[in-house]
Amino acid sequence: MAKLYFRYSAMNAGKSTILLQVAHNYEERGMSVRLFTAAIDDRFGVDTIASRLGVSRQAELFDETTEFVGTIAENAPHCLLIDEAQFLTPAHVRQLHEVAHRLGVPVICYGLRTDFRGEPFPGSIYLLSLADDLEEMKTICLCGRKATMNARLDANGKQETSGNQLEIGGNARYRSMCPKCYYGFTKIDQS
Amino acid sequence: MAKLYFRYSAMNAGKSTILLQVAHNYEERGMSVRLFTAAIDDRFGVDTIASRLGVSRQAELFDETTEFVGTIAENAPHCLLIDEAQFLTPAHVRQLHEVAHRLGVPVICYGLRTDFRGEPFPGSIYLLSLADDLEEMKTICLCGRKATMNARLDANGKQETSGNQLEIGGNARYRSMCPKCYYGFTKIDQS
Amino acid sequence: MAKLYFRYSAMNAGKSTILLQVAHNYEERGMSVRLFTAAIDDRFGVDTIASRLGVSRQAELFDETTEFVGTIAENAPHCLLIDEAQFLTPAHVRQLHEVAHRLGVPVICYGLRTDFRGEPFPGSIYLLSLADDLEEMKTICLCGRKATMNARLDANGKQETSGNQLEIGGNARYRSMCPKCYYGFTKIDQS
Amino acid sequence: MAKLYFRYSAMNAGKSTILLQVAHNYEERGMSVRLFTAAIDDRFGVDTIASRLGVSRQAELFDETTEFVGTIAENAPHCLLIDEAQFLTPAHVRQLHEVAHRLGVPVICYGLRTDFRGEPFPGSIYLLSLADDLEEMKTICLCGRKATMNARLDANGKQETSGNQLEIGGNARYRSMCPKCYYGFTKIDQS
Repeated sequence: MAKLYFRYSAMNAGKSTILLQVAHNYEERGMSVRLFTAAIDDRFGVDTIASRLGVSRQAELFDETTEFVGTIAENAPHCLLIDEAQFLTPAHVRQLHEVAHRLGVPVICYGLRTDFRGEPFPGSIYLLSLADDLEEMKTICLCGRKATMNARLDANGKQETSGNQLEIGGNARYRSMCPKCYYGFTKIDQS
Repeated sequence: MAKLYFRYSAMNAGKSTILLQVAHNYEERGMSVRLFTAAIDDRFGVDTIASRLGVSRQAELFDETTEFVGTIAENAPHCLLIDEAQFLTPAHVRQLHEVAHRLGVPVICYGLRTDFRGEPFPGSIYLLSLADDLEEMKTICLCGRKATMNARLDANGKQETSGNQLEIGGNARYRSMCPKCYYGFTKIDQS
Repeated sequence: MAKLYFRYSAMNAGKSTILLQVAHNYEERGMSVRLFTAAIDDRFGVDTIASRLGVSRQAELFDETTEFVGTIAENAPHCLLIDEAQFLTPAHVRQLHEVAHRLGVPVICYGLRTDFRGEPFPGSIYLLSLADDLEEMKTICLCGRKATMNARLDANGKQETSGNQLEIGGNARYRSMCPKCYYGFTKIDQS
Repeated sequence: MAKLYFRYSAMNAGKSTILLQVAHNYEERGMSVRLFTAAIDDRFGVDTIASRLGVSRQAELFDETTEFVGTIAENAPHCLLIDEAQFLTPAHVRQLHEVAHRLGVPVICYGLRTDFRGEPFPGSIYLLSLADDLEEMKTICLCGRKATMNARLDANGKQETSGNQLEIGGNARYRSMCPKCYYGFTKIDQS
């Protein structure tokens, strides 16, 4: 009955907040959780999941060497929660699929679908393809429409179209946008 | 393009947290919000929306005398957010439908569907019937299944089946349950 | 694991087609279904579910005297499918909730939310309030927006705002509309 | 306001039926549609979309040389419907994103997420990553759970794990399965 969930959104929708709320919901009922976030993401200290609302807590880290089936089997929680899930590898997603369906532990992953070029992250591809349940967390573009894209601005506030996929540090350089604004079909100053 | 949203769940799913996160998302983009909660609910002080994660902020209050179309037209925000929306009247919901579709202000309501007897709240009936977008916020029963029902326990931990619909104070007396546990088709100690 | 589903939409979205497709899906896998429709609806002959695509098949009829728990327990299918579910009584919905969660038979109900006055049907109120899974089937207004309302036109093509809730016969008199067109906030000739 | 939709499911959920129903819904309101299916799929004749319920109609064909923006701009319908959308190329999906957001024509794509090995189709990767609206069409595994995977059986009814991604002809060789059955974590005879 356990499932693999992928809750995706554009940037700054509140994914970490929801993750921390779900952890709280489980623990309030006396049930256990394990929290992971990407080792690659060191914005808030190496082992912390932090919400823009000011709530944060410690998490385990995953990187390419993590093997989830064994790790979870050893110390199985009532729910496994994973932040920054776009940084999972395809192999990780296969493992998490097995954690849900063989070990019976629900797995809820939170992450982005695409980078600033509109290209999917490898982990997101497999989450979108295999998850038993896809759920969008909505956020808004400056124009009022739903944001689905993640734009990256350069130092002059101009939208970048090439460069390194990973630039976690500069959160201030990212803008969640609707496709019309992202592709420039509408004219709104997003800088 | 504005819509009337109803995000419903069983108790203690984190509705107020999400509401506060959405308010934050709008304001971070320089867009304005107005927040309302039910005057009837004085758990946290008469004009506060508080999350179980420890975040809270002031809100306007609605009661039976509130008329939303005029109130919102006078000072229209980019988004109207309503907590404890099960306490809206049917007339309120008609007004909010008009706020979205005539004034063009998106309205996001957060609330319960049913009371401890499994009976719908009057406001929830009209939100479920008219909202352009229904979205469930999931939470769990002690047995691990999704909770959709709200049970109320008496002083001895026994489930109540009759009594006053409104007993906001005793949050500790409520349990979110799946239908199997709520109806007693399974045997789990929920006290 | 069985659930009570309510798949709602405005009129003429294709609810009966989907119901017949789901029945086909089960039977193709060698699994059994039972189909019910409202005795009140005699558009296509008293015991028929008919799709506007030209597909139809026989169904059992429900009326106020139907008691679903006993009926289904006697001859339990792999899935119970109910068309015109807005004509269920609140008591029927309680029974179907029990069929799903005590007998373990999935129940999928297809129906409208509101009548031509924007008032909820009694059965729909309880389906919206208790169903484990609400799913909208989308259809469109003449203006291109999503239709959520059901308007009824009089002989001159003018929208009616009062009258009998039940006028099943004259399907040609109904129009699925978005709220803007339904309330006359936009001006489109829908006759 | 137009969007790019991806309605995905495992095989034999009824995708073509729904597509034909949506086409009917538009045309019944006097609105136009254009239907495309993959040239690669010649099960039912080269230019036909056929439902397992027995309904079918002619469609235009897409292949690698199709350029959707120009094609649609020339003769824009009220809605563009695409069957077998897993056979779109990534470039096609970018074009369809533009058709929705620059030309303002809603695009509804129907297709699979993964092949018999659990690997995503290239077109599906981009649909899952860019679509404004993801909607699952549910179907069932023989065990009663929701099917999300597509297994392929060899002549002896044994599940294949390698081979050519494209074997459209032998529909009888495919089984929609839940992950537990697909991976063999449960033991059910699916042949």
